[in-house]
Amino acid sequence: MYTLTSIEGGVCAPEGFFADGIAAGLKGGESKDLAFIHSDTLCDVAAIFTTNRFQAAPIRHFQKHGITRSNFVLINAKNANAMTGEKGIDDIEAILSHAQATHPGLSSPVMSSTGVIGVRLPKEKIQKGCERFDLSMRNPDAAAEAIMTTDSYPKQVAFEVVGENGARFRIGAMAKGAGMIDPAMATMLCFVTTDAAVPAEAMKPLLQEAARTTFNAISVDGDTSTNDTVMLFANSRSGAYDPDAFAAALKKVMHELALMIVSDGEGATKCVAFEVTGAASDAEAEIAAKALSDSLLVKTALFGEDPNWGRIASTIGASGVTCDEKSLRITFGNITVYDRGEILFDAETEAKAAKVMRKKAFAIRCDLGVGTGAFTAYGCDLGYDYVKINADYRT
Amino acid sequence: MYTLTSIEGGVCAPEGFFADGIAAGLKGGESKDLAFIHSDTLCDVAAIFTTNRFQAAPIRHFQKHGITRSNFVLINAKNANAMTGEKGIDDIEAILSHAQATHPGLSSPVMSSTGVIGVRLPKEKIQKGCERFDLSMRNPDAAAEAIMTTDSYPKQVAFEVVGENGARFRIGAMAKGAGMIDPAMATMLCFVTTDAAVPAEAMKPLLQEAARTTFNAISVDGDTSTNDTVMLFANSRSGAYDPDAFAAALKKVMHELALMIVSDGEGATKCVAFEVTGAASDAEAEIAAKALSDSLLVKTALFGEDPNWGRIASTIGASGVTCDEKSLRITFGNITVYDRGEILFDAETEAKAAKVMRKKAFAIRCDLGVGTGAFTAYGCDLGYDYVKINADYRT
Repeated sequence: MYTLTSIEGGVCAPEGFFADGIAAGLKGGESKDLAFIHSDTLCDVAAIFTTNRFQAAPIRHFQKHGITRSNFVLINAKNANAMTGEKGIDDIEAILSHAQATHPGLSSPVMSSTGVIGVRLPKEKIQKGCERFDLSMRNPDAAAEAIMTTDSYPKQVAFEVVGENGARFRIGAMAKGAGMIDPAMATMLCFVTTDAAVPAEAMKPLLQEAARTTFNAISVDGDTSTNDTVMLFANSRSGAYDPDAFAAALKKVMHELALMIVSDGEGATKCVAFEVTGAASDAEAEIAAKALSDSLLVKTALFGEDPNWGRIASTIGASGVTCDEKSLRITFGNITVYDRGEILFDAETEAKAAKVMRKKAFAIRCDLGVGTGAFTAYGCDLGYDYVKINADYRT
Repeated sequence: MYTLTSIEGGVCAPEGFFADGIAAGLKGGESKDLAFIHSDTLCDVAAIFTTNRFQAAPIRHFQKHGITRSNFVLINAKNANAMTGEKGIDDIEAILSHAQATHPGLSSPVMSSTGVIGVRLPKEKIQKGCERFDLSMRNPDAAAEAIMTTDSYPKQVAFEVVGENGARFRIGAMAKGAGMIDPAMATMLCFVTTDAAVPAEAMKPLLQEAARTTFNAISVDGDTSTNDTVMLFANSRSGAYDPDAFAAALKKVMHELALMIVSDGEGATKCVAFEVTGAASDAEAEIAAKALSDSLLVKTALFGEDPNWGRIASTIGASGVTCDEKSLRITFGNITVYDRGEILFDAETEAKAAKVMRKKAFAIRCDLGVGTGAFTAYGCDLGYDYVKINADYRT
């Protein structure tokens, strides 16, 4: 038994955490582009990273130093520090050394980056920005704003958790997403803070388990970036812990941020849950659900609010999972349009299904009818604005 | 030694072949939507079909009857006859029986369809259309036009082939493509005719081999349809055959049509060859090349004529093939922008690479530098018109 109560404060909601975001001149003008999260108590740290073979320099820096404890993460937007080789890591070392010299007490600081690939970091701008940080600031809104790239709004959540025996702790998080979001966790950064006394060795498995049905279940465009990162900082300041409550809270935090990211996909106007059931296995359900959330033809049909169930069927068939025309059932919201060989798509049903599709959020349910495997993937539509944003992102 | 000479006549260029296309009222108005190809001599027939699990009724009809010899194929646009169950096959039987009754001499006629999924064929319209066919017509242009869906122009080619010992024969073909084109041969129909005396047992392997580097190497949107078909009709009327010359001619015909299809991808303005070399194996080169031709971020960068090499690198890294920042080389046309760890992307290089990207057709070359595997995939850009066409295709 546990309760989760939504609270304000984002990454600063847990005790002992500080954060801010400033304009360091990376985006230009007054736009915030450099953020930090700091804990006044040394944290256990765990992270999961992109599966892209060209992992960006900040990820390789984290791994090179085998970071397990830290009290500071520096995050910049506008430059991914990817494909920058050893020089990219040297740049991070120089920036973080400068930060440590400026702010005594930083322990094993780490860095995270998002933005354009293949350009060296503007080291001096970032160093000068770090000089301006006030580590006693509790400004989570500014931090969440600074890490945005093509996001249209900052993304943060926090919960107060009460578990067994009155164990009471907090968990907070911020994320950025928007483009290059893929089932395999694409350019998204997510930073989770907690004052729960979570055992260090439990942290990474908990992240991995929560990611499977949250960040790894969402897709904006099927591309997997060089920089994807989910980091968890736990400073144990509450002295409290309840494994079930913490696991549920972590999943809740990541689920809410994942849905925000997919709803705010580049040019997206809808968030759709693709619920696949009756598959031969959970793994096959996942393949089919992700094929649907990734399909360009499905995504453009969503944009056109067209209940084109033939594209749904075709995409499932193309995904290679076990399926049969005679056992498949396709439902938009609660409107079944194809039921085990029977096409139920008359004018009235089409009108009802089209009405479902005009909603901002809804489910497309596909029962494959061949087993008990299930998975839900989350996707968005693809409209003109996706093209506009991505045809001209770099310049 | 052989020579291939481009000639007029499409599917009617080989001796003994007839074709026409008429308006049967499927598209509405005067638009041609029903075509046939007929041979006055019984043909050996081979076909390769979509890998989609929900193969359309015409494909299942072909397989049900184990067709190996035929002299007639009927092709309709606007309706895919997919997800229509046994009734879909019954409709084909009824239509083809009617055609046989109307045109004595049709032997094992087959059918092929493209269009919307999940709607029964308008059987009477197609039967009435068949009644109007004149099987002595040589009107390949009308046939190629009738099978179009969102294609912007009819696609046909023909060659006169002179091989060893003066073996002289012809090969012709027509195709439709445009949407749902994928490395795994998506909604595209292609019909190849030849008067070469090709051995029946050689036909399917030759089709499969030619498809690997042609129709299976192109991508418009990564979706694989329920209806994809390549059919080869050989009536041996020339009495001549040269295996090498025929194999080369078949590959040439399919390569030219494949490039037409990708250049005419829905909303496409460019045709780009993604040449991957230096991969650990040909199979890995194919994975990387197809990942590039399928990537939304790469496709939108092409549309924006933005030499965003970071997206090229990121996509290769995300594809999971063996690669290393220190051995990768990326070249736009002849302009190398990244060379084994060195970023060569200064203002001058960027301007040169951008100039390459403004061309209608060009190559993006990626040398992975880890082996000798190679593959070239062909893709197109993704612009506003793709969204426009696909957000509103069905209605």
